[in-house]
Amino acid sequence: MLKSKHLLGLDGISKEEIYTILDTARHFRELFDRPVKRVPTLQGKTVVNLFYEPSTRTRISFELAEKRLSADIVNFTSSASSVKKGETLIDTMRNIEAMKIDMVVVRHISPGAPHLLSKVVNANFINAGDGGHEHPTQALLDIMTIREKLGKLEGITVALVGDISHSRVSMSNIYGLKALGARVIACGPSTLIPREIERLGVEVYHNVDDIIPQVDVMNILRIQLERQESGLFPSLREYHNYFGITRDRLEKAEKPILIMHPGPMNRGIEISSNVADSEHSVILEQVTNGVAVRMAVLYLLAGGSSEIN
Amino acid sequence: MLKSKHLLGLDGISKEEIYTILDTARHFRELFDRPVKRVPTLQGKTVVNLFYEPSTRTRISFELAEKRLSADIVNFTSSASSVKKGETLIDTMRNIEAMKIDMVVVRHISPGAPHLLSKVVNANFINAGDGGHEHPTQALLDIMTIREKLGKLEGITVALVGDISHSRVSMSNIYGLKALGARVIACGPSTLIPREIERLGVEVYHNVDDIIPQVDVMNILRIQLERQESGLFPSLREYHNYFGITRDRLEKAEKPILIMHPGPMNRGIEISSNVADSEHSVILEQVTNGVAVRMAVLYLLAGGSSEIN
Amino acid sequence: MLKSKHLLGLDGISKEEIYTILDTARHFRELFDRPVKRVPTLQGKTVVNLFYEPSTRTRISFELAEKRLSADIVNFTSSASSVKKGETLIDTMRNIEAMKIDMVVVRHISPGAPHLLSKVVNANFINAGDGGHEHPTQALLDIMTIREKLGKLEGITVALVGDISHSRVSMSNIYGLKALGARVIACGPSTLIPREIERLGVEVYHNVDDIIPQVDVMNILRIQLERQESGLFPSLREYHNYFGITRDRLEKAEKPILIMHPGPMNRGIEISSNVADSEHSVILEQVTNGVAVRMAVLYLLAGGSSEIN
Repeated sequence: MLKSKHLLGLDGISKEEIYTILDTARHFRELFDRPVKRVPTLQGKTVVNLFYEPSTRTRISFELAEKRLSADIVNFTSSASSVKKGETLIDTMRNIEAMKIDMVVVRHISPGAPHLLSKVVNANFINAGDGGHEHPTQALLDIMTIREKLGKLEGITVALVGDISHSRVSMSNIYGLKALGARVIACGPSTLIPREIERLGVEVYHNVDDIIPQVDVMNILRIQLERQESGLFPSLREYHNYFGITRDRLEKAEKPILIMHPGPMNRGIEISSNVADSEHSVILEQVTNGVAVRMAVLYLLAGGSSEIN
Repeated sequence: MLKSKHLLGLDGISKEEIYTILDTARHFRELFDRPVKRVPTLQGKTVVNLFYEPSTRTRISFELAEKRLSADIVNFTSSASSVKKGETLIDTMRNIEAMKIDMVVVRHISPGAPHLLSKVVNANFINAGDGGHEHPTQALLDIMTIREKLGKLEGITVALVGDISHSRVSMSNIYGLKALGARVIACGPSTLIPREIERLGVEVYHNVDDIIPQVDVMNILRIQLERQESGLFPSLREYHNYFGITRDRLEKAEKPILIMHPGPMNRGIEISSNVADSEHSVILEQVTNGVAVRMAVLYLLAGGSSEIN
Repeated sequence: MLKSKHLLGLDGISKEEIYTILDTARHFRELFDRPVKRVPTLQGKTVVNLFYEPSTRTRISFELAEKRLSADIVNFTSSASSVKKGETLIDTMRNIEAMKIDMVVVRHISPGAPHLLSKVVNANFINAGDGGHEHPTQALLDIMTIREKLGKLEGITVALVGDISHSRVSMSNIYGLKALGARVIACGPSTLIPREIERLGVEVYHNVDDIIPQVDVMNILRIQLERQESGLFPSLREYHNYFGITRDRLEKAEKPILIMHPGPMNRGIEISSNVADSEHSVILEQVTNGVAVRMAVLYLLAGGSSEIN
């Protein structure tokens, strides 16, 4: 069981809660290898996907998780919404609540939007990304993937590489990994790493080659191509030269490094193709685990016990 | 049982038919408090949502009603449609019919479009709003909400406040309420009330303060912000001063007035926040009843008896 | 059983495979006349509709086929996709595959895209139109309709009329009809008929009146209105005068000609209304058969036997 009726972030989550989610997700993961990938857990429950920011993979991953739990699904995206009609976010949410829904998956450009909504509306909320704040299910799927591959999380060293400043994925990973006793490194241009991050117990590096000998896992973050004009880094080519993870660079590691990326990848920029497709890359396993983790979170928030039969 | 195989409007509907729908809706409303909010009534039936005008709440409300009846759903919206390819509306509808569908929920900018389609295609049609003409399920949910709160409809006084001219919600409310023996008042600027309305037995007022002592229910219509430039009223501020429903105004009533709004609300324009959120506001109950009324209409048109077990 | 695990085109398909699909489709067609039009065949399987080109009727037809087989459905359209984020098509597909999906229906502007994807991803692929290349399920529904009406395919004469050059529907019809022993005529302006087509055993005509005495079936292709400016034909009016199928023209036939059109129709251009709506038009039966054919293909690719009970 989870302490909260929501999953708004990993800030403050306990080690036990994370393991409960991961153990439950592993059960659902096994379901995917069966001919029938559907269980009746959420039959007759209504889950609303409230996406105020465009999303493909996260939305599809949640939708598949909901369908495999047999939920009734309502999709509400900003482009097709009352947003333009001047209604407040809270009025929209209260209207949806009045249709007697059970759970809400919400993505919003404003940090804290899911927290705000969870306070005024009676439903289970899952944060699917709120601005640069948190994206807890992404971090949980990252952590699940590390655990499946390395067998443990305590004492391992995970590097988040790239644009930490604009990355909700990073923030949630830091909270989750620290709670589990992992060592976390942030590596990227100084313009893209917030200084406050050290207060969370994260070690900051600006040279990728310095961290390669130390890390078990590299989680390579996506460079937002549209930030190139912001002046935060000189050029994509220069970014690649300094921070791109290439096979050449990785050969300096003594032992294989687990390669992760939240997707979508810019091949040849933050990651080279031969790294993305290498035997140590678990990028696609992350995607598989994402559906399982989301099923687990939906299941547990709906009151499911951690023992699935 | 309903006389017609369609619900195109409330013009001409009988008192008995309305009560059949409301009684059925009350059964479905009770379903929402159960853990499993789904019944197998429409299993294996195909319902098409044909929306030629953007809509969020009406579309979601119908979709939820259909899902809770276990129908197979096809969504067809104008933006993703063959409209641009030059096909006629009737050809599009005949094509959808040929896929062997059972029911069609249609919203269209042209008054009468659902009637036209219902004549050429063999399916049960529900009008979800046709131009300024009718929006029968909205009026039915309004009427259901009044009945649940006041216990009766005969002899009560309902005021429709605001832009009556462009309001299909008003027209359907007038037909339905008059059929049930209620007194109906229309109140708004003379530029926004069609004179013909008096022929339907509606009393017209242009001063909100004059009607407050007389009414049991106020159904406050949304001001379309885009009409501000049309010259039909001087300004939003002036509209609010003359017609906005505020707590100050309502204090002049001898007994509490039931406050309704079809949504989405413009807080501070046609309705003040303290009225919208007051104990006499049933705006969110309207939304809940909306799903129940739509389930009832779908159920009855599909041939369900008024006795649900 | 089908030889391939995909349906990428009709080029190379055997007569036996086509008849297996048509016989299976006929079973599903009968289902549509029952009150419950749903079978549990694909329960717990995930079908992805990956549409990189806008589509209404084909997408809805596939969706209905999938729902009537009880599949879990994920819709992925280019407008809501990662396409803009710079991810490659193959990376997108691999990501979707990693969510453990079973079948993919793909429409793409590039000829060969479904073939490419089927080589890198482990799922059953159905081509729903790839550029000007193939659209096999459309041809199968055309062929099914001819068979239901004329009782046989061997030895009959089918004319494809209009823009053959830009028509994937034509190409798939040619492959399928030739495999079944039908005679195929292509008739249209010389600017809109590729010369290579004769190598496929197709007879080319440029005068509609010459073919009318010879054909059993006319499949009248849609004129893309946007091609009018391309200079490939002088004007829509002129096109209609030379190639439009009118009742006057058809009266010169000795026996009734079966009239088909893949839709959406431009009434008054490639086809006159009295032909489209005549007793010999089977245009809407094509649409019905389309859902049945798509159910058959999904069923057979998923491993169903050609004996449905």
